[in-house]
This record gives sequence, structure tokens and C-alpha cells, in this order.
Amino acid sequence: MRMSQSPLPHPLCGIVPPMITPLRDRDALDGGGLEKVIEHILAGGVSGLFILGTTGEGPSLGYRLRREMVQQTCRLVKGRVPVLVGITDTAFVESIAIARCAAEAGADAVVLAPPYYVPEGQPELREYLEHLLPEMPLPLFLYNMPPLTKVSYELETVRWALQQPRIIGMKDSSGNLAYFNALLELRRERPDWTLLIGPEEMLAQALLLGGDGGVNGGANVFPRLYVALCAAAEAGDLPRVRELHGCVMQVSRRLYTVGRHPSATIKGIKCALSCLGVAGDFMAEPFHRFREHERKSVHAAIEELRELLGPLAAV
Amino acid sequence: MRMSQSPLPHPLCGIVPPMITPLRDRDALDGGGLEKVIEHILAGGVSGLFILGTTGEGPSLGYRLRREMVQQTCRLVKGRVPVLVGITDTAFVESIAIARCAAEAGADAVVLAPPYYVPEGQPELREYLEHLLPEMPLPLFLYNMPPLTKVSYELETVRWALQQPRIIGMKDSSGNLAYFNALLELRRERPDWTLLIGPEEMLAQALLLGGDGGVNGGANVFPRLYVALCAAAEAGDLPRVRELHGCVMQVSRRLYTVGRHPSATIKGIKCALSCLGVAGDFMAEPFHRFREHERKSVHAAIEELRELLGPLAAV
Amino acid sequence: MRMSQSPLPHPLCGIVPPMITPLRDRDALDGGGLEKVIEHILAGGVSGLFILGTTGEGPSLGYRLRREMVQQTCRLVKGRVPVLVGITDTAFVESIAIARCAAEAGADAVVLAPPYYVPEGQPELREYLEHLLPEMPLPLFLYNMPPLTKVSYELETVRWALQQPRIIGMKDSSGNLAYFNALLELRRERPDWTLLIGPEEMLAQALLLGGDGGVNGGANVFPRLYVALCAAAEAGDLPRVRELHGCVMQVSRRLYTVGRHPSATIKGIKCALSCLGVAGDFMAEPFHRFREHERKSVHAAIEELRELLGPLAAV
Amino acid sequence: MRMSQSPLPHPLCGIVPPMITPLRDRDALDGGGLEKVIEHILAGGVSGLFILGTTGEGPSLGYRLRREMVQQTCRLVKGRVPVLVGITDTAFVESIAIARCAAEAGADAVVLAPPYYVPEGQPELREYLEHLLPEMPLPLFLYNMPPLTKVSYELETVRWALQQPRIIGMKDSSGNLAYFNALLELRRERPDWTLLIGPEEMLAQALLLGGDGGVNGGANVFPRLYVALCAAAEAGDLPRVRELHGCVMQVSRRLYTVGRHPSATIKGIKCALSCLGVAGDFMAEPFHRFREHERKSVHAAIEELRELLGPLAAV
Repeated sequence: MRMSQSPLPHPLCGIVPPMITPLRDRDALDGGGLEKVIEHILAGGVSGLFILGTTGEGPSLGYRLRREMVQQTCRLVKGRVPVLVGITDTAFVESIAIARCAAEAGADAVVLAPPYYVPEGQPELREYLEHLLPEMPLPLFLYNMPPLTKVSYELETVRWALQQPRIIGMKDSSGNLAYFNALLELRRERPDWTLLIGPEEMLAQALLLGGDGGVNGGANVFPRLYVALCAAAEAGDLPRVRELHGCVMQVSRRLYTVGRHPSATIKGIKCALSCLGVAGDFMAEPFHRFREHERKSVHAAIEELRELLGPLAAV
Repeated sequence: MRMSQSPLPHPLCGIVPPMITPLRDRDALDGGGLEKVIEHILAGGVSGLFILGTTGEGPSLGYRLRREMVQQTCRLVKGRVPVLVGITDTAFVESIAIARCAAEAGADAVVLAPPYYVPEGQPELREYLEHLLPEMPLPLFLYNMPPLTKVSYELETVRWALQQPRIIGMKDSSGNLAYFNALLELRRERPDWTLLIGPEEMLAQALLLGGDGGVNGGANVFPRLYVALCAAAEAGDLPRVRELHGCVMQVSRRLYTVGRHPSATIKGIKCALSCLGVAGDFMAEPFHRFREHERKSVHAAIEELRELLGPLAAV
Repeated sequence: MRMSQSPLPHPLCGIVPPMITPLRDRDALDGGGLEKVIEHILAGGVSGLFILGTTGEGPSLGYRLRREMVQQTCRLVKGRVPVLVGITDTAFVESIAIARCAAEAGADAVVLAPPYYVPEGQPELREYLEHLLPEMPLPLFLYNMPPLTKVSYELETVRWALQQPRIIGMKDSSGNLAYFNALLELRRERPDWTLLIGPEEMLAQALLLGGDGGVNGGANVFPRLYVALCAAAEAGDLPRVRELHGCVMQVSRRLYTVGRHPSATIKGIKCALSCLGVAGDFMAEPFHRFREHERKSVHAAIEELRELLGPLAAV
Repeated sequence: MRMSQSPLPHPLCGIVPPMITPLRDRDALDGGGLEKVIEHILAGGVSGLFILGTTGEGPSLGYRLRREMVQQTCRLVKGRVPVLVGITDTAFVESIAIARCAAEAGADAVVLAPPYYVPEGQPELREYLEHLLPEMPLPLFLYNMPPLTKVSYELETVRWALQQPRIIGMKDSSGNLAYFNALLELRRERPDWTLLIGPEEMLAQALLLGGDGGVNGGANVFPRLYVALCAAAEAGDLPRVRELHGCVMQVSRRLYTVGRHPSATIKGIKCALSCLGVAGDFMAEPFHRFREHERKSVHAAIEELRELLGPLAAV
């Protein structure tokens, strides 16, 4: 039943950055910034773009803005890479609406975390998916993000999902590599399924044991680094994997610890892109751009990371 | 700065049921059911209605439906009691949009839990409120619901909120009575502030030590019971408070334990109203009405509870 | 089957302070301090003493010291009030050993929280109790403390426990008053069972709806206050309950927030007793007495509280 | 300051199984079983033995039994591999007592998780370590196990620990590979430090990026498998690592999911050793051996795993 015309490789391998949403104001997309950030990322050799995810501040954006983001991104990408659109929502009909908007705009797939207000049990989650799937105009990736949604796609539910032709893969941001490894075992039954990992601190290890790629926030800033790490892992070049993994750990250590709250990662990424002149760092409520002293820390980090990364940091 | 024309008493005392949203279908309000449930609840002598909260499945409803719910409720209530409208959302602009809709429809206040996707720190939460307040056309109640939002209004934030004229009270559903008692201490500085408690199992105790009232799901089904408990507490009639508290505990024990997941409370309430012929039990995704055997349990519970409650269960 | 010679009232009503363990050094009891703290507390009119609980730093003390504490306390109390001894341990045989020591020393009951390293399921917990009960030379109180033990006595397990003659009551420190209220409903079947509440911030409300008393840390410092609150609640004197509850909230707010970690409550109590000249403030590892500036805060708090409490603060 | 006579390699590389404690009864060591299990494990080529850890049911054993276990194990191992002894305890003096017993018996190091009743803050944890270190007759490994201790060794504390000569490494059972990777970065400053990973589902990945080895429960049953995985990782033989990792995942999936509670892993391991005729499956309270139908599942799993593993399963 999967659409044979889909440009999506099965599985989808490589880096699919969870792209930020450049904003001019609370409810206004920064169109120029969007174009620049897309070109910045695509120049790094990524395999796709995932928009309106956690890093893309999807849930914090109004629906009008989300639709504009979908349409502008698809228009600017022009089919050069697949575009995946986050449709996670507490309201079923709004998820469907964004999915339709994505299909009309020419996106390639949609990405769904469990609805995240009142936590549903696994039978409820499965029934929800059963009702949602027939309404989906595009193939679906599951997005496992229990720290934010409270509910996980437990293995019994993934086992069921592996039998649904319209569900074509999963992004796991649980931070639980034992769970990710269990997913890898399960998907042996369906090798066309895509398994991508969220936390970049585990990217190297996920790739070495069979993961297809990563949806890593840092790839907004230094896409070449993450793409190179994927290539090294695919080539089985362990020394190079270790070296590049060390670089990723430095990005994480330097860029994501400037702020103190869980939003520190997104703030760090947006601030870094602003320091690089790619896009502004305006953030959707309830978050706000770094203050001056934090920005200085990010600036210093960027300088050191560029030195460390050399050509892999080329903008 | 509070609007002097507001019909809201300060504080708002008594029972303000978190009203269910009667649905005909996934995206269709059950207008007839809505009218009947409003009359059923108002006949019980309640002090207000809170719509689009957790029990009202607010976050699970599409925006069009939320607006319709606001408009129809205000139209049907006709000012007989204050209407409070839940505007909790992960997107700032959508919270504002619902608040404006509420003001235009003639509602009396809005109710806001912290944005609930990426958890914000307390300084971020406070800054968010500072930005939101000037956009609010109606006075605001805080809604503390950490089991679902992950973020609490911590005491330092409440201390600040007590100094904001446009924030007029709080509904606490934390289930932490020590926290509620600390709120009661804090609000001595501002006696016009309203403090309402969510979990009905603690209603009696919250009232006896100074709480103003309750936002209790069971008051959808048996509004007279909760109103009577408030009256007994206000009269300092301890034996009657104990007797009525025992009845509330029976409602909780019989009605909210039929299902197994956290949604069991809302399902139990909707199913009970359906058994009573007040409104259908259709639920918004990702939840679904009880199956037949669960409905039979609810039916039996309702029969026993009507016998126990006598005239307090009159429909 | 309960021992008819037991001096324990059924139920045990009133205040049973979780007594601190005065220490001279890491592994040395402060005998003089112990005598003074016992007299200080007993002069307040309490109904019993609970030693080696959380406030008594039980799990932090070596076994030799625990035995000495049991023996000295029983010797000094001389049967004036019942002595309850905490036997919670991760090792079954050590719990039994302390229980035997308690019986030999003349204590009246033992108190047991679930073993707290690898969390057991409820069926495992029940089987554990079934194996432990025949080895107990004294009647047993359950001690519910899920924030520290990770495992709770769930209602199904309490229902079973209510049928065990040798289990005679429960101390609930869950902080969940809805759970406590459910316990009160369950124990209607066995009115001789004792239900005591731990967090003093909820003491007034627990008493007003049928709780038998409190095991409240603050009663180490101001025993008369908590005893007076019990008396007011038993007399149904609501205004007096509210007044005394307000005093308890002040103790909590002033004394337990000087430190920043969860140990702040115990540190505050020990420091206060030291300021009052009752006993030293040496603490068992991994905790340490307050530093000078924290001690100054406690000292100031004590002064203000003594003024607030008047004769209820008499030492 | 580290004892130069220590037979411990720096770092300690390879597999150090967290050995079970064979029991005849509640308080009786199974001496014959202990000898057999030691020989079974040593025949697999392991690099050390860790006793009285979580898998060794350390906290559930009485102190007399713990001492006997230390003495017997050291006597039976006869210096063939280093013996590491768990001294984690809520009571400081008992940790010291076990450490002294370990030194006298000829053990090589002690292993310490944070005290696990009232959770301590990081400054308190560090001060606790500062007080404990001078009392330690053997070098110390930290044991990070936040799911059971509630408290983690946070990175700031590890940074301090890396400067203590008597702290020589860490076992991380957090299940958080991003944390483990951060540890690897930190220990670059002290390459003699040992970093071992607990959860065997992540062993391969931990090794590939620089981890020294594993403390994996399954190595009680199939020590050769885990040793072979270490060797393959050290040789940089990625295909072999993947194959052996797949075997480990099968052990985990088949053996640790027979029971339903968190104790399922220990129960599965003890039952498997019993099926293999190595040692009995008696468990310390509050846990109990598998019932007959669970034992049958384990038996079937063992048969299939032996077929899958071939010579790596040789007993």
C-alpha cells in the first residue's frame, strides 16, 4: 500500500536534521532565515529534513504558522531531499489537518509522537493509531519521546506497528539505547523500516550496531560533522568514528549546557545559528533567546568548535 | 485594574464543575447533550462552570470545536453563573485566540495551566505569564496540574502571581494538600484571591481549612452532593461534612476505578452521564467510550450511588 | 491473636513523634541528649514514641547503635508511653533481629516500610509480609513512605493487611491525602486499626475526617502544639483547629526550608533542638549539621515561633 | 597513593560479572554452589568478580552472611582474578565494616553506590565520599545506579572523583549511554581510571567507543559470550561484534522477561544457573524463586540459547 512514487528510500539512511523554525516574531516566520538555514543544512549532505519537531518548536507554534512553515520549506527544498513533517498534537483533527497540508505542499512523510496531555495506555495508543492511519495522506514515522510525551511506544505497540504498511519507521529520542537496540532486533522482520536516533551523543553507537541514521539537533549547526560520522560508520572505519564521535560530544558539551533548563539545547542551537549569521534566534513562547552573557558563551564555543572541526564546520 | 463589572465574586466560592464536552462525533458538538448537561449541573446549585479543562477534554478538541463549545455554553448559561474557559495550550497565539473568543462570547474568566510540551523553568514560566497577561481580555485563573503538564506553579511563582491584579485565583489539581495549604497561607495577603481544589477526594479537607471551593469532576454527575458538602463545611457542621465526604469517596471508588488507565476518571464521568440519560459518552481521541462490560459496572455503580445519596442524587 | 497484655490502645490516638536519635559521634549515642529529648517530648503529652524512623535516621545508623538506641529509649521511657521501633531494612534477617531486640527491651510495637533497594511488586511485598509476620515478636505497624522506598503499600495490599491480626495499623507518609482518605474508608471494617499521618502540613485535615493521629517531625520540637491540635480536632473545635494548623504551617515554613536538600527537614529539627538546648545536632552520614549561617536562620525561626506559639512552645 | 602491590590492572579491562550469591536458605550460603558458580564463571575467561552487588542481592543479605560470602569467595578464587566487593549501605559504619572484612579476606577493591534511603544532594554526596575515603583499606570503584539509589553521581561529582587517587573507576548502570559517553570524555584526564558498563544490552556500544568492559548479569550464565564480545570489540572486528551483540540481545530478551517485576533479571539469572545445574535458585527476601511455569520458560530459553551460542555457551 506504500506509495511507490515516494522518493523516500527504504530505509531512509543518514542524517535528517530536526530543523529549527526561524522566527521574526511571535507569530511570524523569518522567510529569509528559513532559506538560509535550509541551504546551510543541505550543503552539508543531509538525507532529509524533519520540520516542526521538538527542535522545530512545533507544539509552540500557532497552526497558521505551522502551515506556512510546511509550505515554505517544501517550496524552498524543491525535492532535493525528503521533507518529513511533525504532526504531533493533542487534538486528532489538528494532526490530520497538518498532515493534509503536508501532502498538499509536497512533503514526503509525517512524524507522530503520542498525544501528550492525559497519558494514554498502550491499547489506547494503538487504537488511536488504527483510527489515524486511514486519514493519513502520507506515510508515517513514529516519534518516541517519552521525556516530553510521558507515553512511550512500548515494544508490544512497535511490534504491531511493524505490520502496518503505512508506518515506515521510527525516530527514537528516548535516550534509552537498550530500547533502541530492542527496536533493531524487532525490525529484522521488516528491513525496509527506518530506525533513526535522536540524541546525538548516542549517534555513533546507534549507527555501529545497525541504526540507519540520526535526527540530531546539532546537524542544524554543523551538518557535515554528522554526515561524516554516518559515512565513517557505514564504512566500518572505527578510528574515524571515534574521532568524529569525540567532536559530537564536544558540540554537546559546549553548546547545550549554556542554559540551565531543558530548553537549553534548542536555545543553544538557535543562538549558534545566529552567531554564524544563518538565522535569528527569536524563540516561540514560553522560551526566549539567550541573554548577552549566555550568547557570549555560545560565541566562544562556536569559535572553538570551528577550530576543532576544521572543514567539517564549513558554513 | 480588575474589571469592576465582572460578575465574578471575589473570591469565587463553591463548586465550579469542570464540565464535560458532549460530543456527537470526533469533531462535532452534541448541542442537545450540552444543553441537558448544563441544566443538570445548574440545577444542583453550582457557583460556576469551567469548560475545556482536563475533564472537558480541552486539549483533545480541535480549535473550531473549542470555539463552538465556548459560544454555545455561554449562550445556554445566559449569565446564570460565571463561565470559566480553559485556554491552556502549547502555542501562545492559540491561547490568546481562545481567550478572545471567550471574552467575545461573554465568558467571565480564563484558566491557564503551564504550556506542557518542553518543560519550562520557573523563571521562563513567569516571563511567559508576564507576556501573556497584557493580551488577556479576561481575568485569569492559574491551573496547577503537574501530573499532566510536568511543570508546577511553584510557590515562588505563586508569590509573584499574587501581586498581579489580573490573576485572580488558582485551581490546584496537584493532589498535594501540603502545597494547597501553603497556597492558603500565601493568599492571606490577598483575600480576594480564589483557591479551588481539583481532586474531590480532598474537597472536604480543603474546605475545612479555608479553601474556597472545588472544581470536581464528580459534580458533573451529582452536583447537589458537592454543593451540599460545601455548605456543610461553610456551616462548620463537621458530622455532616464527614457524612458527605464519605459519599464523595464512594463516588470516587465506584466510578473512577472501572477503567484501568489515567483516562478512567473522565470515561467514568461520561459513561455515568450517559447512563443517567443526560448526554452521550462519545470521547475525543485518543480515548474511547467504555465497552459494554465496563458500562454495566458503571450502571450498577450509579444505581447504588443513587440509593446511597437519596435526594442529593436527584437529576 | 493480638497480645492482650499489650499496653497499646486500639486504635492508638494522638501524637507519636518520630523521635530524633541524638548522636555524640558517627557511631556513638548521646545518652544525656536522649534523656533530655525524651523528657522534653513526653512533657508535651504525646501518646507514644516512634524511634529509628526516617527522622530518627534509622537506616543511617549501624546495627549496634540501633540496638543501643532501642534499649536506652525503653529504659528511659519506663512504660510511660508506648514505644514503636522502626525495623525497616533491606535485609530480612536484620529486620527480625531489631524486632527481637525491641521485644526484649520492652518496646510495644514495630514499624515496617517496604524493603527499599530493588523495588518489589505488590504480590512480592505481600509474600514478604506473610513470611515476616510469624517471626515478629511484637505487633506491626505498616509504614508507607513511597518517596523514599519507591514502593507503596497499594490499596489491594492494605486490604489484605487489614485481615492480619498482627498488623495493627499504619503510618502514611505518602503525602497523598486521597490515598489516606481511601485508607480511612478501608479501615471501617476494622475500627481497632490505627491510622496515623506523617506530613504535619496535613495533620489537621487528616484528623478532622477520622485519622487517629500524627507521626510528625515537628513534635520533637514543639510537642504541645501538635497535641493541642489533636485535642482541638477531637473536640470538633474548628476555629481552634484552624488557628493551630496555621501555627504548624509556620513551623514547616520556617524550620524545614532552611536547607535545600530533602534532608532539610531532619536537619532543621535537629538544629532547632540544639538551639533549644535539648540535644546536639550531630547527624549520621551522609548528612551533616547545618553550617553557621543556616543555624542562625534556625535560631531566628525558633525565636519567632516561640513568640507565635506562646505556652504551646514551653520547653 | 594507590597501592602499588595491587593486582588490579589500571584500567581493569574485560568482563567482571556481578556474581550471584548462591543460597541454601534465608541466612545460609550454599558453599558448594558458590564453588561451582565461581569455577563456571572463571572458566569463561573473565577479568574479575564483583560480589554483593545488585545481582548478588547484597542489600538483601544479613551482615554475617555478607562477610561469609566475602571470605568464601576470596578463599575459592585464590587470587586468579581480582575480587571486587560491594559495600553500598545506608549506614556509614557498616560500609566500613564490610570494606575491612574485604581487605582482610584478600579482596582487591570495594564498590560503592550512594547511600539510598533519604536522597542526598551532590554536595552532601561528595562530603560523604571525603569522609569515607580515609577509612577505606582498599581502592574504591563508584557504582552509579540511580534507578535503585535515586541519587546519581552527577558529572560535577565525577570530575572531583577523578582527582582522588583512591577512587580508581566506575561502574555505570544508569542505562543512560549519553552519560556514559560523557564519563568517557571526562576520564581522558585520567586514563588509568576504569569505566565499566552495567546493562549488557549496551555493552557492545560502550566498548566500541572506549569503555573498558562490562559488569553484566548474563555473564553469570554465559561468561564466554561476553568475554568474546569484549575481545571482538578490542580487535575492532565489527561484524563479529554485531553478531555477538545479537546473541546478548537474545539472552536479554529470553531470560529477563520471564518475570514481570524489576526483580525479573536476577530471578532469570538464578533460575538459569539452576537449570544448568550450577547452583540453586533460592532467593533472599523479598524475592522468591520462579514458580514451575516460569522455570519451564527459562528452561526452554536456555535450550534455545545454547543452540544459538554453540561453544560460547559451553559450561
